[in-house]
Amino acid sequence: MNAMLHTIEFVGVLAFACSGFIEARRKRMDFVGVFTVAFITAFGGGTLRDLLLDRRPLFWVENQEYPILIFIFALIAVPLLRRLRHVVTENILEWADALGLGLFSVTGTSLAFESGMPMFVCVMMGVVTGIFGGVLRDVICNEIPLVFRRSQLYATCAFTGCWVYLGMSYFEFSDAAALSAGIISTFALRMLAVKFDLKLPA
Amino acid sequence: MNAMLHTIEFVGVLAFACSGFIEARRKRMDFVGVFTVAFITAFGGGTLRDLLLDRRPLFWVENQEYPILIFIFALIAVPLLRRLRHVVTENILEWADALGLGLFSVTGTSLAFESGMPMFVCVMMGVVTGIFGGVLRDVICNEIPLVFRRSQLYATCAFTGCWVYLGMSYFEFSDAAALSAGIISTFALRMLAVKFDLKLPA
Amino acid sequence: MNAMLHTIEFVGVLAFACSGFIEARRKRMDFVGVFTVAFITAFGGGTLRDLLLDRRPLFWVENQEYPILIFIFALIAVPLLRRLRHVVTENILEWADALGLGLFSVTGTSLAFESGMPMFVCVMMGVVTGIFGGVLRDVICNEIPLVFRRSQLYATCAFTGCWVYLGMSYFEFSDAAALSAGIISTFALRMLAVKFDLKLPA
Repeated sequence: MNAMLHTIEFVGVLAFACSGFIEARRKRMDFVGVFTVAFITAFGGGTLRDLLLDRRPLFWVENQEYPILIFIFALIAVPLLRRLRHVVTENILEWADALGLGLFSVTGTSLAFESGMPMFVCVMMGVVTGIFGGVLRDVICNEIPLVFRRSQLYATCAFTGCWVYLGMSYFEFSDAAALSAGIISTFALRMLAVKFDLKLPA
Repeated sequence: MNAMLHTIEFVGVLAFACSGFIEARRKRMDFVGVFTVAFITAFGGGTLRDLLLDRRPLFWVENQEYPILIFIFALIAVPLLRRLRHVVTENILEWADALGLGLFSVTGTSLAFESGMPMFVCVMMGVVTGIFGGVLRDVICNEIPLVFRRSQLYATCAFTGCWVYLGMSYFEFSDAAALSAGIISTFALRMLAVKFDLKLPA
Repeated sequence: MNAMLHTIEFVGVLAFACSGFIEARRKRMDFVGVFTVAFITAFGGGTLRDLLLDRRPLFWVENQEYPILIFIFALIAVPLLRRLRHVVTENILEWADALGLGLFSVTGTSLAFESGMPMFVCVMMGVVTGIFGGVLRDVICNEIPLVFRRSQLYATCAFTGCWVYLGMSYFEFSDAAALSAGIISTFALRMLAVKFDLKLPA
């Protein structure tokens, strides 16, 4: 279970960093901008959650492998992504991003729950963990955050997954089962939203 | 006194959330955006103050009624505001917003003062509490913050009210008297600024 | 040594505040905006670092002289800068800014190092301290941060200076020597970048 979570985390961090990388390149940023935006997209949500919950040390402060990984990624991303063009398709990125969204949101909720927060706040913390990296990416890139515009369900998927997790915890399922169910329901709902172009009503 | 402060708080939170709601709708955001922007407008200033002063738990983390209230408000705001069009006029919103500005600024100053901050910093913390919700709203909506543009006095009213509060505390008036004087002077100055279109010189 | 560091700090804070002031004026902000943007440019980086490292009290909270200084500066900057036009040239501002960048970055790294952070994270914290004031300035002024665009080396100079500091600390040079070397190398690299228009490759 733990190994699987670490794999998802790794995949999710890379997918988030990738989306920051692509946005920063589109804005013609140089290496400093590309690295910073990729980093903030990957870790902004979790960092904001930890600031709000007053948890220290921050995830990426304790594990400097991740900042270094993104630093190297930002250095080699252009040739790497060109070479892997046929492997890393938009489709794969959507999958990886949805997995990351599920994992970050559900574990964010779980951390808030352990700190004794009330239910609705736990879900908010989970959604913040999942989506605020992307929000900060768009604010820095001088765009209205994509996740707030009328686009395919995204925050809503995280919101649902977090309630699934809390619900299963409430009925005393094992933590592994609740985590998996939360991540899978976020992932599945997000994939459905992409496939069938599901949006919230205006 | 306490009941009155709670009423003002409630009115102020709703007025701030309303201004976030209106701005988010103008930018054609969906429910996720509307809720988030309304929430950040209402609680952004107080949250930033608490992060700066290292106070926990955050106000809205302890009182999950408020996030839930804004969630419900964001769900029903469109029909609600249409139905109440003749009651909730622009005028009423200005009143409610000015009351909220007064309350949040003066209580922000009072909290900083209790933590033993120097005077000028207390006033800054008060103004931050009052105005930074609106600043974050505008940053997320990709606008230059309204309160920084040459518009009718806003931060200046909060600034004045905070000094009134500190001055009266210094001369050992009761806390209730100092709070009321601070809130009323913020409110009155803001109402004058709206009525007579008062602005800072360029 | 300490007196020299305080002088550099003073010069750097003024230079940073000045760049915030100029940007805010360009956006036609009023006094509230000008003061806030100048303040955030000067102290935003250090404040973010302290939030991330959970250090309190914040620098400007403990030393209210600095907020007051910037308040007065924002009041009198227009006539002051006009009168000093022949003394405070763009050239002088670049010098002062580069000194500030060096000092803030290297001391940021040093603070993170004392808190026992891993090396790469220390350098990141240093660069954050040096550049995030400017990043926040540009975000509030609704621009893509200058330091992320393809402009003359800036963050890269801070990055280099922080590694010089850490390297010399590692080889057990005195702290004064390591600090000086870090600040001087940041400063020199930045001056070279301005003079020879050095940029990162695309």
